[in-house]
Amino acid sequence: MSKSSASWRSSDRIPVAVVGPTGYTGLELIEILGRHPTIRIDYLASARVPTPRIDQEFPRLAHRLAGHPTGECEPIDAAKIAVRCRLVFLCLPHEAAMEHTPALLARGVKVVDLSAAYRLRDSATYERAYGHTHTDAAGLPRSVYGLTEWFRDEVRGCDLCANPGCYPTAAAIALLPLLRAGLIDPSSIIINAASGVSGAGRAPKPNLHYPEANENFSAYGIGVHRHQPEIAQTLRLKGGDFGAALGGEPLFVPHLLPLERGILETIYAAPATAGLDTLAVQSCLKAAYEREPFVVVRDDAPTLRDVQRTNMLHVNGRVVNGRVVLVAAEDNLVKGASGQAVQNANLMLGLDETCGLL
Amino acid sequence: MSKSSASWRSSDRIPVAVVGPTGYTGLELIEILGRHPTIRIDYLASARVPTPRIDQEFPRLAHRLAGHPTGECEPIDAAKIAVRCRLVFLCLPHEAAMEHTPALLARGVKVVDLSAAYRLRDSATYERAYGHTHTDAAGLPRSVYGLTEWFRDEVRGCDLCANPGCYPTAAAIALLPLLRAGLIDPSSIIINAASGVSGAGRAPKPNLHYPEANENFSAYGIGVHRHQPEIAQTLRLKGGDFGAALGGEPLFVPHLLPLERGILETIYAAPATAGLDTLAVQSCLKAAYEREPFVVVRDDAPTLRDVQRTNMLHVNGRVVNGRVVLVAAEDNLVKGASGQAVQNANLMLGLDETCGLL
Amino acid sequence: MSKSSASWRSSDRIPVAVVGPTGYTGLELIEILGRHPTIRIDYLASARVPTPRIDQEFPRLAHRLAGHPTGECEPIDAAKIAVRCRLVFLCLPHEAAMEHTPALLARGVKVVDLSAAYRLRDSATYERAYGHTHTDAAGLPRSVYGLTEWFRDEVRGCDLCANPGCYPTAAAIALLPLLRAGLIDPSSIIINAASGVSGAGRAPKPNLHYPEANENFSAYGIGVHRHQPEIAQTLRLKGGDFGAALGGEPLFVPHLLPLERGILETIYAAPATAGLDTLAVQSCLKAAYEREPFVVVRDDAPTLRDVQRTNMLHVNGRVVNGRVVLVAAEDNLVKGASGQAVQNANLMLGLDETCGLL
Amino acid sequence: MSKSSASWRSSDRIPVAVVGPTGYTGLELIEILGRHPTIRIDYLASARVPTPRIDQEFPRLAHRLAGHPTGECEPIDAAKIAVRCRLVFLCLPHEAAMEHTPALLARGVKVVDLSAAYRLRDSATYERAYGHTHTDAAGLPRSVYGLTEWFRDEVRGCDLCANPGCYPTAAAIALLPLLRAGLIDPSSIIINAASGVSGAGRAPKPNLHYPEANENFSAYGIGVHRHQPEIAQTLRLKGGDFGAALGGEPLFVPHLLPLERGILETIYAAPATAGLDTLAVQSCLKAAYEREPFVVVRDDAPTLRDVQRTNMLHVNGRVVNGRVVLVAAEDNLVKGASGQAVQNANLMLGLDETCGLL
Repeated sequence: MSKSSASWRSSDRIPVAVVGPTGYTGLELIEILGRHPTIRIDYLASARVPTPRIDQEFPRLAHRLAGHPTGECEPIDAAKIAVRCRLVFLCLPHEAAMEHTPALLARGVKVVDLSAAYRLRDSATYERAYGHTHTDAAGLPRSVYGLTEWFRDEVRGCDLCANPGCYPTAAAIALLPLLRAGLIDPSSIIINAASGVSGAGRAPKPNLHYPEANENFSAYGIGVHRHQPEIAQTLRLKGGDFGAALGGEPLFVPHLLPLERGILETIYAAPATAGLDTLAVQSCLKAAYEREPFVVVRDDAPTLRDVQRTNMLHVNGRVVNGRVVLVAAEDNLVKGASGQAVQNANLMLGLDETCGLL
Repeated sequence: MSKSSASWRSSDRIPVAVVGPTGYTGLELIEILGRHPTIRIDYLASARVPTPRIDQEFPRLAHRLAGHPTGECEPIDAAKIAVRCRLVFLCLPHEAAMEHTPALLARGVKVVDLSAAYRLRDSATYERAYGHTHTDAAGLPRSVYGLTEWFRDEVRGCDLCANPGCYPTAAAIALLPLLRAGLIDPSSIIINAASGVSGAGRAPKPNLHYPEANENFSAYGIGVHRHQPEIAQTLRLKGGDFGAALGGEPLFVPHLLPLERGILETIYAAPATAGLDTLAVQSCLKAAYEREPFVVVRDDAPTLRDVQRTNMLHVNGRVVNGRVVLVAAEDNLVKGASGQAVQNANLMLGLDETCGLL
Repeated sequence: MSKSSASWRSSDRIPVAVVGPTGYTGLELIEILGRHPTIRIDYLASARVPTPRIDQEFPRLAHRLAGHPTGECEPIDAAKIAVRCRLVFLCLPHEAAMEHTPALLARGVKVVDLSAAYRLRDSATYERAYGHTHTDAAGLPRSVYGLTEWFRDEVRGCDLCANPGCYPTAAAIALLPLLRAGLIDPSSIIINAASGVSGAGRAPKPNLHYPEANENFSAYGIGVHRHQPEIAQTLRLKGGDFGAALGGEPLFVPHLLPLERGILETIYAAPATAGLDTLAVQSCLKAAYEREPFVVVRDDAPTLRDVQRTNMLHVNGRVVNGRVVLVAAEDNLVKGASGQAVQNANLMLGLDETCGLL
Repeated sequence: MSKSSASWRSSDRIPVAVVGPTGYTGLELIEILGRHPTIRIDYLASARVPTPRIDQEFPRLAHRLAGHPTGECEPIDAAKIAVRCRLVFLCLPHEAAMEHTPALLARGVKVVDLSAAYRLRDSATYERAYGHTHTDAAGLPRSVYGLTEWFRDEVRGCDLCANPGCYPTAAAIALLPLLRAGLIDPSSIIINAASGVSGAGRAPKPNLHYPEANENFSAYGIGVHRHQPEIAQTLRLKGGDFGAALGGEPLFVPHLLPLERGILETIYAAPATAGLDTLAVQSCLKAAYEREPFVVVRDDAPTLRDVQRTNMLHVNGRVVNGRVVLVAAEDNLVKGASGQAVQNANLMLGLDETCGLL
């Protein structure tokens, strides 16, 4: 904490809180906000007793926190946070997010929630997917789904942003243009996805123990992963008539990669029109995203290395053997979590959307 | 070479040659044969000038080669090999395999070819896939495709065994029972595969440079990989009426994993019959493989760790969201190459198929 | 368990027990013994309630256990084990090893203990290093330290073999010849070691969580690791006059590598004689180990890849900048644990020392 | 290149050139400068014919280069560079750096050279270490060694900064305070270092091929690495009387880690004074670096994860078993190369030293 930097003390920056900073999305938020020109972290809140020092939790943050008043986490106290901060990033378990959100909103603090608590518009769907009661169903209508590229206007004016899941972000960005344009058959979609281990969180588990996950690769949650209904919801909401025509859920099969970060999704769909070719698929994607600062439509298939530690999503589409194949890549902790959270916060605070993210 | 072991000198073992031992399949063969109770390596042949010493090429082989007459590679000389060996493992580039095979067969030596030279029955298909002329098309009818579980009787009596590709081995073993039983629609097959880097060989390349492949994941050869026609050929030959009805090629999309060895294939197909369920899929697989020593039908999805450095293939099938999903795992260098080569050699030499492989 | 193999049923094999087979050394033992020509596992014992099935614990063992009566672990029952087995491998925590060893010895079963329980001859030293009471100090004189190359005769006739620690094995093999020959100053020894994560066991811990250990490297237990007194003891016992002259303990600094298995030790010492050169160092090592089946004195520095999944230890020595530098490599789970355990068991059972290990 | 960002066009930023941007230090420089508030890249120069597009070379740079006039590299033309840029970062091979530096300096452009060309003050020492003639020995006196923390005043006024080697940066920062204070014996220093593979550059080589470097660890250049004389030079120049008393070179033994980036050095030395303890060592380090923005003296041993992708160097010292043990960690591409290069450029351009680096 001894390394000084004037920037954190700058009184003209917008103060925000990071609640639950001891997980990987919290760490990533602190890293991003530490370079943000107009936002500063004023409050780090943890439910742990005693509250941790974040630079002891993550020694690499020592220099990032230079200038932060104390570097110590404080308890999660909505009243205190409301006095000092205009916006809160919640990096909490789903249940805890539902618990704290109403109190923060009631005190006029904007909330970007990185959990799944407010992503699904229907609490019954939520409860099936997550296996516990939704204790703030009344708050769902107030929330906006923060897939920025597709909900930008709603995000701009909202108080409660439900930051999307990592897998759904890539799937929706890759599929929505083609679905809206009627180029693919909505009933044929298969999303074969692979994620780095950071997506599974920071708590040690047997299958994430280094000698188990290392040099290994496996499918999990085949067709029953809880991100599947989230993907289906977005495709229906923003997929136009074809999305609305989506019957059940598309098939989503995630895999665990032996690496820290990154999601690559290889997506298959049947063409909805005869003679669909690669050019038409790519043109559709490029038209949709040509002005988007964080989406790059690539002429070749992207790799994880192309997007790691950036807020970018790279996507490529083609038609081969009579099938549309899309490959989308993002960093699960950035565009798939904390980067997109800052993208949304920028909009909610009236800042340039790209602020601190390029 | 100073570590002595009587086993290599045992005169009652069957002498074989490994031609092209300086790549990863060659190394794996030497490791397997070093523990084989009834086969011994008598001849190591390399096209390199000067010929390498294999224990300098791979220091880990020092103790495996104990007792081998010299440990030095000799030139590829069909006449000399024929004098000393009953069977040859060819671990050469495709073109070199075509060049040496006829001479070896003419001298009465059995050949297990680990290249793709004799895998495709039609030389025109071969030439399209591999981009060069097939210089021994006359030899194709003599070859037997060495997917042991499905061509066992043919392999037993053959002189020239075309050892299958790594990806086609897993795809065919997973799909053939369901295809023959008419449980899946042959036109709907999508094979999403991922392989460790050893599958790409031992020659350094920019995309296989450690800092590029490490912490990375990518799709490549999307729908145009040369293993695709090999998979199609096997499904047609052994898939029964449904295999024969296969139109074009199934869609095959390989990916590169940041690990040394292992192939995991996640295979999607539409059910061909209404009401197909997981039980029926698993029963079909179990019936097909219950007596197979190297195929395990798992009730859960296998991971790479379950099969690495074994000659086993683990497979699991299920029906989710109206689709059949198969997950198959193998070691690309063992069941996908050198292990299956020994499995075939065992049959060709009249030995127990599992000899040296359990 | 359905894969059949006659070998496990062979009645002329020596039956042994593996007690505590659910950790990494247990898994490695089962893999090695599954290929052993004259030993068979008759009893798998676990303290867990309910007792696990080992093929569910490690799906990769399905084929290795073919023929094992049930594949199920049984409780740790010394009486039952004594009826069926001649020798027991204990892969238990230190305290549990002390608890079960006396009962097994009393029933005439030989014991190879892979824990540290019987490694240190002095119980007070043990208690300082391990932080708990030694509950079988009376058993210590009966034990033989199983660094096979240096205690071969003692091991051959013993009933209780204390299998060495992974780090001490490499350090002692590298240092003893030079120390005995008086080539290095015993007070100057620095052992800089690095191990793969499997050495830390199978229980998940925060620092061994994949996203923490991956792409990371760190020193730990600097100068206070409990293998340090074990190294010192061996150097004193077998280091000749120079070992006996060793004052305090040599400095031992282990590091954690982002890989599964392997130990590399880079060892520094001051020459004890003027004009010592690389030739003299290498000659000393070669003379000591020329007849050893599992030690290779290399002319270049070994890497982990050269020894992984073998029972070999590769070592190289040189003199540079006025210092002796030794590099020793081994697989921590094989020569550093289960491989050496089988090497010792072979001797204790009157078998060829290399049986099942080459 | 289509993603727009006004920042690159900002006319009030200082224009610089990156020469040789297609290696890892070039990529890292572009990433750092892309976030720098007061410097902009105006010129990307490559010796390749045809000149590459940097966003094709590194697809991840697409968004970083937004606003850069073309994204295309231009030839290395000192005259053109001098017209447009005030400072040049040279990321070239040593020989090429010597070739271009005089022409750039002659035209009034400041140079930060990331090669070793100007690091060693004595051309004979350089030629012994690097094995080729120094073609600009006349330029050596003009250069300043850019270990910022120890040569800050010289760097501030210089035109030619020789950016230090990655290993020497960590070694010198860890050792200099103790050496100057006379706490350690200069003749006893052993630097046991380990680096990620990115330190070996971007050209594929057999030992850096993924399946060779992965899961591997090895020592190389034992006592003969060319960074050894660079370390010795710095210790002599800035180590006070004790540095001046340094006889030959300290022993430096690097190792290759299976990870992308990071250097960890575990450094051993004999205390020069009786009774030296950990507190005295840590106090000395803290006193030396308490005001340094990029050096953190830690109370525990740092890991690579603590410093990766930062310009920080973390160091910890202690006394154990009668020896001083220092552990220093840095990112070899940031503090060990491009980050320190920007730190030096900031000083040379009259900017705050930390600009763009926190």
